[in-house]
Amino acid sequence: MVNIDGTRLLADLHELRSYGASGGGVVRPSYSEQDMAARAWLTSRMAEAGLDSFVDDVGNAVGVSPNTGPTLLVGSHSDTQPTGGWLDGALGVIYGLEVARALLEDQHTRHLSVDAVAWIDEESTYASCVGSKQFCGVLEARDLASRNRAGEQLADAIARNDLGFNRPYKLDSSRHVGYLEAHIEQGPRLEEVGYLIGAVTSIVGIRAVKVTFSGQQNHAGTTPMHLRADAGVALFDYAARLRERFSAVATGSTVWTFGNAVLEPGAESIVPGQAHLTAQFRDPDDELLTAMQNEMEALAREMSAEGPVGVSVIADRDGIKPTMMSPALIDHVAQAAELHAPGKWMQMPSAAGHDPMVISHHLPCGMLFIPSINGISHDFSEDSLEDDIIRGCQVLADAVVAALGSAPG
Amino acid sequence: MVNIDGTRLLADLHELRSYGASGGGVVRPSYSEQDMAARAWLTSRMAEAGLDSFVDDVGNAVGVSPNTGPTLLVGSHSDTQPTGGWLDGALGVIYGLEVARALLEDQHTRHLSVDAVAWIDEESTYASCVGSKQFCGVLEARDLASRNRAGEQLADAIARNDLGFNRPYKLDSSRHVGYLEAHIEQGPRLEEVGYLIGAVTSIVGIRAVKVTFSGQQNHAGTTPMHLRADAGVALFDYAARLRERFSAVATGSTVWTFGNAVLEPGAESIVPGQAHLTAQFRDPDDELLTAMQNEMEALAREMSAEGPVGVSVIADRDGIKPTMMSPALIDHVAQAAELHAPGKWMQMPSAAGHDPMVISHHLPCGMLFIPSINGISHDFSEDSLEDDIIRGCQVLADAVVAALGSAPG
Repeated sequence: MVNIDGTRLLADLHELRSYGASGGGVVRPSYSEQDMAARAWLTSRMAEAGLDSFVDDVGNAVGVSPNTGPTLLVGSHSDTQPTGGWLDGALGVIYGLEVARALLEDQHTRHLSVDAVAWIDEESTYASCVGSKQFCGVLEARDLASRNRAGEQLADAIARNDLGFNRPYKLDSSRHVGYLEAHIEQGPRLEEVGYLIGAVTSIVGIRAVKVTFSGQQNHAGTTPMHLRADAGVALFDYAARLRERFSAVATGSTVWTFGNAVLEPGAESIVPGQAHLTAQFRDPDDELLTAMQNEMEALAREMSAEGPVGVSVIADRDGIKPTMMSPALIDHVAQAAELHAPGKWMQMPSAAGHDPMVISHHLPCGMLFIPSINGISHDFSEDSLEDDIIRGCQVLADAVVAALGSAPG
Repeated sequence: MVNIDGTRLLADLHELRSYGASGGGVVRPSYSEQDMAARAWLTSRMAEAGLDSFVDDVGNAVGVSPNTGPTLLVGSHSDTQPTGGWLDGALGVIYGLEVARALLEDQHTRHLSVDAVAWIDEESTYASCVGSKQFCGVLEARDLASRNRAGEQLADAIARNDLGFNRPYKLDSSRHVGYLEAHIEQGPRLEEVGYLIGAVTSIVGIRAVKVTFSGQQNHAGTTPMHLRADAGVALFDYAARLRERFSAVATGSTVWTFGNAVLEPGAESIVPGQAHLTAQFRDPDDELLTAMQNEMEALAREMSAEGPVGVSVIADRDGIKPTMMSPALIDHVAQAAELHAPGKWMQMPSAAGHDPMVISHHLPCGMLFIPSINGISHDFSEDSLEDDIIRGCQVLADAVVAALGSAPG
């Protein structure tokens, strides 16, 4: 047990919010002036907490514990979406700082080793999860060549900020035993049932599939209904039939979305000759995703055989695989949640992506969620209750203490 | 009875085709150099046939009969779509020339009065049905201000061709008793049943309705299925349910088309918050069109009440009203069809628009169709069989003789 300082936690969150503040939200994309200023401030707060702090060679703000022994890395990312909320990423970053700080202040825990981190460019301003990739040694040339919307390459953003010869921060398997990240849920599941903590079990996998319908473009007046091969009608039919099939295989964690549909040529007086449907689906179970993709392909074959419109599927066969959290870390989060929110927490997958998608391939990961008001995120109106913010940090601190207490010495 | 000259008819059709010939098709938009050259040639052929021919003050090529007494006007338009076929319009224009010519050549019919006409800009290069509107005295200032794709106003196209002070050709109710137009069907109905002539009963009315679906834009990962208000899914559902309702009220002449559908913002990872569907439907019966529109509005109300997505309809309440052909002229066409294609003709509506949409408000109209190969029109591959072309003209000639024989003297 260790007690975090809720007042200090909220003060630091609001201080971080001031970097790039815009309306109720924050505009602090990675490698911007605001982002780099925030990282300088973060390292100063880490240093005040007794951590060996620096901005590393790719821009991560890092506070290394002065202690030896098994080390937990705790944090999140401090960059934001182009028009982001004040808690996405920032919450987990200040939690990392507060947990490391509170542990060092308490005589019962000051021997425990926690590194605090603020990853850079999780939000894909240039590439995705740039900071955690560099930490894991998997940042590739194609990432460095990726550009932001203004056309600047990641490599140039790093050079512009004079980061290249900074001290590196790398995964040290003789030292690091796990990574813990707290985050706002970014969805409405906790709020809907009145729960206060989510013990994240996985990050869902994602498949994206494009379906093309090939009919015969024709005059909307002179072509009788029974002689039409209407690609648009086939698309509507496919979507309706697929919803039934998806519903039959889905679990409560499954989501699917028809994000776009295009009819060609898209004119009032022309029977569409071509149509295109975009489907995306997410679930923690990769086999279920494969089953859903198989349903899409089977339905395309059936409708092509029925005619008159041909249906073909271009599948993102590999997609993004689900990311599994460490069972031990899930359990530590769950036990701490039961202590501070008895009966009001649940295990749940994350439906959004996070740095553990990279890190979990190299180090056991755990995550916890606190409720998002109205489930809103990636928006200026993103917010969470102060009591929920403080409770989440206390749960994380206790999970860290338990994890390090049970870690091999 | 009068005998048309099939060889001469085909020769004139191919001569007209040479003005603007492109591949197998024709590019002869109204007021173009090719169009005006074709009109000069047409008036020369009309003059050779013994007609008093001229290009009128709006560009119509006209051949006025030398006879007195009740006069039938026979023809079509000689302008084409931007990339048109060789028969659309041209067929009916050369039919008018050939019928007037054949009648004047035959001692039994040379007293009958037929004016031949080639209307200008039926195809809406600038406005629609410009020539027939001028004939009927209903060409409006807004038509003259209409522009082609290059931005030229109709009034300027008329001035550029020095037409303004040409001799006018106006409906004369003391002389004109009706208008007859032959046309390719532009659809597959005749070909499908192996029929050779269509006696056109009406030109279908058209309604266009836009439907807007208002849901809640959301994250495609973090928003559980049961909390979504997906505007795209509502659109697919609406289209599927509307098809059932339309099928229940439609006749064999009814067509409906969902020409366009747009999901907003149209991104793979975003639940669509807004969606828009374009519906157009056509039928000879205006009450049936109203019934279909009522179905659309009723379904929108029902789905809005069911929620969670609001559905609203913006209706083109008046649309284009159906145009009815003269029962007497339908009958003359039908009797001539039965003579030359016994058992192989039918009464049918026109699903495409024609100059009688304007003229029928001022003068009784009749139309006949010949089959289109594969139902194709407004395309370079548009074609009809030579036997069908010749037979159609003979049917038209006999219908003209019968109509003038029964006309009040």
